Parts: sequence; C-alpha cells; structure tokens
Amino acid sequence: METQVKNETLISKEQLLAHWQGHRALTRRTIEAFPEKDLFSFSIGGMRTFGVLVAELLAIAGPGVVGLATDEWKELDERDQAQGNKAKLLELWDQTTEQINEYWAQIPEGRFQEKLVAFGQYEDQGYCTLLYFIDNEVHHRGQGYVYLRALGIAPPAFWER
Amino acid sequence: METQVKNETLISKEQLLAHWQGHRALTRRTIEAFPEKDLFSFSIGGMRTFGVLVAELLAIAGPGVVGLATDEWKELDERDQAQGNKAKLLELWDQTTEQINEYWAQIPEGRFQEKLVAFGQYEDQGYCTLLYFIDNEVHHRGQGYVYLRALGIAPPAFWER
Repeated sequence: METQVKNETLISKEQLLAHWQGHRALTRRTIEAFPEKDLFSFSIGGMRTFGVLVAELLAIAGPGVVGLATDEWKELDERDQAQGNKAKLLELWDQTTEQINEYWAQIPEGRFQEKLVAFGQYEDQGYCTLLYFIDNEVHHRGQGYVYLRALGIAPPAFWER
Repeated sequence: METQVKNETLISKEQLLAHWQGHRALTRRTIEAFPEKDLFSFSIGGMRTFGVLVAELLAIAGPGVVGLATDEWKELDERDQAQGNKAKLLELWDQTTEQINEYWAQIPEGRFQEKLVAFGQYEDQGYCTLLYFIDNEVHHRGQGYVYLRALGIAPPAFWER
C-alpha cells in the first residue's frame, strides 16, 4: 500500500479519452479548413506542409494507442499514406478515431504510471507518453493555424472541442 | 463513497505541476530565441506578435493558478506589461513560475473535478480549466515556432522540457 500512488482522481481515464478525442475533433476541422492543394503544398520557413504534419500525427496516434494497450510497439512509420488526397487523409483520421476508442478500453489504468519505451525508443512513464501525443498534436495544429492565417483562411475556434 | 470518483491515479498532482512547468520552461526558451525587435513586431497573416501572445499566457497562468487555489477569480487582464522589453517579459515569466509553485500547493485535489467559472466567465471542471491553460500555451508556442522559422531561427527542441 505504501509504495502505490493513490489519491483523489485529478482526471479519470474516460475524461482523458474525451480530452484527447476533443483535440482530435478540432484537428479534423483544421484539416477540413485547408484547400486540398495548400494542405499538401503550402508551408512557411522550410517547414513541413500541414498534410505531412498530419501524417506524423496519424503515425503516432493509432500505433500509439495500440502500444499503450498492449505494450507492444512497432517502429514509428511516418510515411504519408494520403498521397495528396484530402478525403483520404480525413478517412485515415476517422479510422484512427475508431481505433483509439477501441483500444482505449484495453489500456490498464496502471499503465499510465509504468515506464514504457514508446515505439521502441522513447522511454517515459505512460502518462508522459500519452500527454506527449496530445501536446505534439496541439503544437503542430497551432502551426497549421498560422498556415491558414497566412492563406487568408480563418481557422476553427480553438476553444471548441 | 459511491458518488466519489476514485481509482488508480493516472497522473498525480505533483506530476501535473511538473508537466505544466516543463512546458513553461520550453516556452521561456522560445521567448529567449526571439530577437527583441521581432518578439514585439513580427507576425504572420495579421496574427498577434509572439510578445502579445506571451502576455496572454501570463494573464492566464498566474491569476489562473490563484483561481484554482482559492476559487476566487478576477477578470482576465491581457495587457502587455513588458512594453517591448524582452528582459522584462522574461522577468514576468519567472515571477509567474514562482507564483505557480507557491499556489499549486494550495489547490485542493478535489478542485480538479469541481465545476469552476474561471475568470468569472469560463465554466468547466477544474481539470479542463487547467488543461486549457496548458494547451493554449502549447498552441501559441507552436505558432511562435513558425514565426522563428520564418525569421530563419531554429526553435528549441520540442521534446526537451
């Protein structure tokens, strides 16, 4: 009993899922706001296009939730599977949304305090790993907002999830 | 007992503070990376300068942690108090860092599941309010990264906290 961290819950597992999926819904609206051409060609300062950034988010989220559920990790594969096709990118996004909901239920609650080696190379506690997935998405989506503004397009409201 | 949410801790209060302050340390390095002139003048697509975005982060973080600790909320005051002075902005940042550490200890753990009306206008549970503070910082810092890239300056490593 002494060695296990237990206290009043700051955030429950269900709340953490809703938080993640709320962010993902906003990122989906951000993808939708891009004209297809700009999604895969526009960038600033030599950065990646938003389409390529989204390919990274997809490479992390789906295999990431499987890893959290099973603690079996494949190497990160960030190849863009949408190949310049916005509808395909949104389809992949929605498939990942389903995958997250499915595997989330299988994550043992204790996993969040365990040490993991995510994707076989990033060692950290489970909650840090998950928060990294979310923060990385918020970070890149914020960059997508600048691309949209530079294109003269209003991004979706940040506070709506 | 039945009505109170209790289970194995996903993330402890101390871990959540370290997570927040880790992000804030990265934002501090992002501020440092800007030349003073660009910090308060450069922007893309009609957006706010990074200096003004940081003024918003300061307006939220310090009064926000006081609100979480006391549940007494003032109106949001986003006025830029650094007035074009980078050293002053960093000094305000560091004062807020201390303030967060001081007031964090006073936040009752149950606060994170309570309904709050942050800044007298944003109604949500405590954990949503805090995560919003953090996510908003990650979002705007990501935008600062684009400004830096557009200026030909390499931003700090995202994964270092």
